[in-house]
Amino acid sequence: MKQFINSRETLVTEAIDGTLRTAGGRLARLDGYPHIKVVVRTDWDRSKVALVSGGGSGHEPSHAGFVGQGMLTAAVCGEVFASPSVDAVLAGILAVTGKAGCLLIVKNYTGDRLNFGLAAERARAQGLKVAMVIVDDDIALPDLPQARGVAGTLFVHKIAGAMAEQGADLDSVAQAAERVISGAVSIGMSLDTCTIPGSPKEDRIADGMAELGLGIHGEPGIEQVRFTNAKEAMDMAVERLAPTIGPGPHVALLNNLGGATPLEMAVLADELTLSRLGPQIRWLVGPAPMMTSLDMQGFSVSLLPVTKADEAALMAPVAPWAWPGCLPVGDVPVVALPDGLTPIQPIPSKNDATRAFVERCCAILIGAEPDLNALDAKSGDGDTGSTLATAARALIGALDRLPLADETQLYRAIGLELSQTMGGSSGVLLAIFFAAAGDASASGMDAIDALKAGLDRIRQVGGAEPGDRTMIDALHPALDALGQGLPAAARAARDGADATARITRARAGRAAYLAEASLAGHNDPGAEAVARLFEHLTGAGTTQRQDA
Amino acid sequence: MKQFINSRETLVTEAIDGTLRTAGGRLARLDGYPHIKVVVRTDWDRSKVALVSGGGSGHEPSHAGFVGQGMLTAAVCGEVFASPSVDAVLAGILAVTGKAGCLLIVKNYTGDRLNFGLAAERARAQGLKVAMVIVDDDIALPDLPQARGVAGTLFVHKIAGAMAEQGADLDSVAQAAERVISGAVSIGMSLDTCTIPGSPKEDRIADGMAELGLGIHGEPGIEQVRFTNAKEAMDMAVERLAPTIGPGPHVALLNNLGGATPLEMAVLADELTLSRLGPQIRWLVGPAPMMTSLDMQGFSVSLLPVTKADEAALMAPVAPWAWPGCLPVGDVPVVALPDGLTPIQPIPSKNDATRAFVERCCAILIGAEPDLNALDAKSGDGDTGSTLATAARALIGALDRLPLADETQLYRAIGLELSQTMGGSSGVLLAIFFAAAGDASASGMDAIDALKAGLDRIRQVGGAEPGDRTMIDALHPALDALGQGLPAAARAARDGADATARITRARAGRAAYLAEASLAGHNDPGAEAVARLFEHLTGAGTTQRQDA
Repeated sequence: MKQFINSRETLVTEAIDGTLRTAGGRLARLDGYPHIKVVVRTDWDRSKVALVSGGGSGHEPSHAGFVGQGMLTAAVCGEVFASPSVDAVLAGILAVTGKAGCLLIVKNYTGDRLNFGLAAERARAQGLKVAMVIVDDDIALPDLPQARGVAGTLFVHKIAGAMAEQGADLDSVAQAAERVISGAVSIGMSLDTCTIPGSPKEDRIADGMAELGLGIHGEPGIEQVRFTNAKEAMDMAVERLAPTIGPGPHVALLNNLGGATPLEMAVLADELTLSRLGPQIRWLVGPAPMMTSLDMQGFSVSLLPVTKADEAALMAPVAPWAWPGCLPVGDVPVVALPDGLTPIQPIPSKNDATRAFVERCCAILIGAEPDLNALDAKSGDGDTGSTLATAARALIGALDRLPLADETQLYRAIGLELSQTMGGSSGVLLAIFFAAAGDASASGMDAIDALKAGLDRIRQVGGAEPGDRTMIDALHPALDALGQGLPAAARAARDGADATARITRARAGRAAYLAEASLAGHNDPGAEAVARLFEHLTGAGTTQRQDA
Repeated sequence: MKQFINSRETLVTEAIDGTLRTAGGRLARLDGYPHIKVVVRTDWDRSKVALVSGGGSGHEPSHAGFVGQGMLTAAVCGEVFASPSVDAVLAGILAVTGKAGCLLIVKNYTGDRLNFGLAAERARAQGLKVAMVIVDDDIALPDLPQARGVAGTLFVHKIAGAMAEQGADLDSVAQAAERVISGAVSIGMSLDTCTIPGSPKEDRIADGMAELGLGIHGEPGIEQVRFTNAKEAMDMAVERLAPTIGPGPHVALLNNLGGATPLEMAVLADELTLSRLGPQIRWLVGPAPMMTSLDMQGFSVSLLPVTKADEAALMAPVAPWAWPGCLPVGDVPVVALPDGLTPIQPIPSKNDATRAFVERCCAILIGAEPDLNALDAKSGDGDTGSTLATAARALIGALDRLPLADETQLYRAIGLELSQTMGGSSGVLLAIFFAAAGDASASGMDAIDALKAGLDRIRQVGGAEPGDRTMIDALHPALDALGQGLPAAARAARDGADATARITRARAGRAAYLAEASLAGHNDPGAEAVARLFEHLTGAGTTQRQDA
């Protein structure tokens, strides 16, 4: 059993209880478990026409999910794909029906018709006004008069629900329901079968095939069709629907049969509005799971011609969250890209000392390429040296474009260059380091504090702290010591880098995923790069432990 | 490919467009396809703190589905499970950020941290106030400080969203977000892997196993555990969460990772509220898909300690439909069963003529048992005769209990007896026939009209019309002719029954599913039963064609 259930026998009652515990007191059930599973509104006063629907379970959120203000008054739930009993339906009717009477909204399946029908008789024998409508919106089998009731039922719930909520009488509500039923058409399509709880899954639909014209009880579609993509799937559904509707504006209901992802449903919504019926589809309900067939990876499209009165009824707010609303369909609203996406190129400026300093830093990193690669190969993919050297070469090539005379702008410009020339996380982190240092410099900080601000930012963004075996283990002590001069900074960087060889549990970066043995005894290559940089800037050469 | 998509390359842009076309004009996108996929509110005035989130796609409704009043201002969408680019994030920030500034809500994945982080730097360089928080609610790996960000992110969206909507400043919103992040804990569990679009599905989780401690990118959970049922699955999740939370009331968020059915999620909601953490769970968000991992058949539970201010923020109404609301958790409200479920037993009364008539009808049906069974065997399961005979025997046994002196009550009582003693659709239909006849009789109709009212009702409920090869083909003409006496009715019933042998396309009942060849030349057994009844009542014997 690959399902989050406890047993097939307790599935429906437990699911209803789960729904009720978390409905904020809006819903209750009748005290008739396990045979009578009826969910009712707790805020119902019987002065209005009650709407009772239901049927087998496995179609959630139908039907209990649509009980509440503006929709159903009660839902009578059977076991999975099985009609509720006459007694259960009668209990539902009796629980909510006052003088205004009750409309039963029944999908066209024999069991439901009979059990709701007999319950209606029993209620009438007790003097209650009970009307019953049969929803038969499925157009899969055009020449069979006994069309199934599927997701178009939601149109009936919503429009009749809005009328009942507004106080319309039973005849008016029933007539409106009949009118909606006569106008509603639906068709379903699926790429896979559903999994009936406690039963092995039927493997009926081959790869590259789909079923068109599905009911909602796992029965096969009327035909298997080739499946190529979402557009052609929706076009097939649309081709079936088109001949069954008249001209004029329609509301569409795009139903997830259960197992399609929201991504797929959104693509299908796109294709539906772009289909040849698109111009007639003025409003859309969904895409959302409304009348599901357990976990069936499929969709259905329902259409209904819309009058002014229907429009208001469809738009009226309701309490049940499962109703996704009915919204006007339109073009994709597109907003121009904002200014400022293209970084402003700094105005180049000259400063021979700065130029020489940058060149020297770059040369140091280029010179360290083979050693750093070798070190990285102990614990990574051996490219730290090349990544830094490539960036250094690019920076040298960019020197004529850099604002060498303006420290703030130079930091920012270096950040920009690095983000464009240096791949991977380290490129982004160094870009953030220099960009943040530039910001700090712009706000008046001196060079050391600006660099520390850059470090703070990459600690926040990268999530690495000292001791995590990253370049920060050298950079952090070096910047702390830099106020005492370069040699002090170099010594601090070296100590920090060498200490990384004793950190055998990396907590950030790629090394976090490596076993301890592959880390022990080797400096982190990023930290080593920082140490080399500071050491060479002081002219000290490398004092690195010779294990690389 | 078993997915409703067109191509992996166009999946995300098409899904976003589908979402936007059907969002009622509430949402727009930036004009940066395909690289910049940013969804923004169209009703945004930049006077409030903007909330920007995002990340890879495949987590729908996160993140575009939560853009709107009271939650996000913009969502920056990457390809499936891939971080959006720095440029895309920057475009999102620039598009919505005014003087009040912008909070970036980032889940703790390296790519997202870096790209959002660098975009923030670029925006700051342009003078914008940008704060960034990193959500790390996943407790799957308790000793790794780099916990992933998963569904607990929704708490941040909602609480920060409510504050921003109310006009709080950036520092306050960012501090609240940090506080929520420090309190939020989540864990996920799944029975199956997800299907990455365009890739074959990985078959990693064996039957009877589940993965505990999942991220939302299809990566394996931290451990595989035995799966037995929903209760034990939820208890395992709860056992991981319990040590990570303090005392006091919490809000829980029950997230569908994509492929669990609403039934399963409702059972899990039940188990969560009944678990040992239940008493601490004062409010629940969901169950609903909020932070999915494509079609993963799993769930996650997130917890957050709740202050008074949080409570209001969590409950505040929002525009995005995908937010299922935050509702107080309570016991299952149970309402007593209504009176009237147990049918009132009629008061027995005597009438010798009626008793003899009923006995005679029953005897006729009992006598027809073998013939009717044989006839039914041609097109069904051969039990029509036995079904009717069993009901007739039961009715004879009930004669002393029947109100034989009161026609109205007698009809109702017979209906009740038949519904209790006669199985299948025919029992229910005959029960409806007699119950409706009783109602009609109660309203003053004479016997023939009352029986016709019964027939009308079973035509409505059963959906069968004359010509559909059912008992109605004999009953309808018989009742029409009954005003001219029993012999006329018997002739009409016989003609109608015999005509069913020429109806080779049944349109209702079980015979609707049979091939024409198995129907031709045989009377419908229900119609034949009616004809025999009327014929024997007139003393005419059977004139049936001898093919049974």
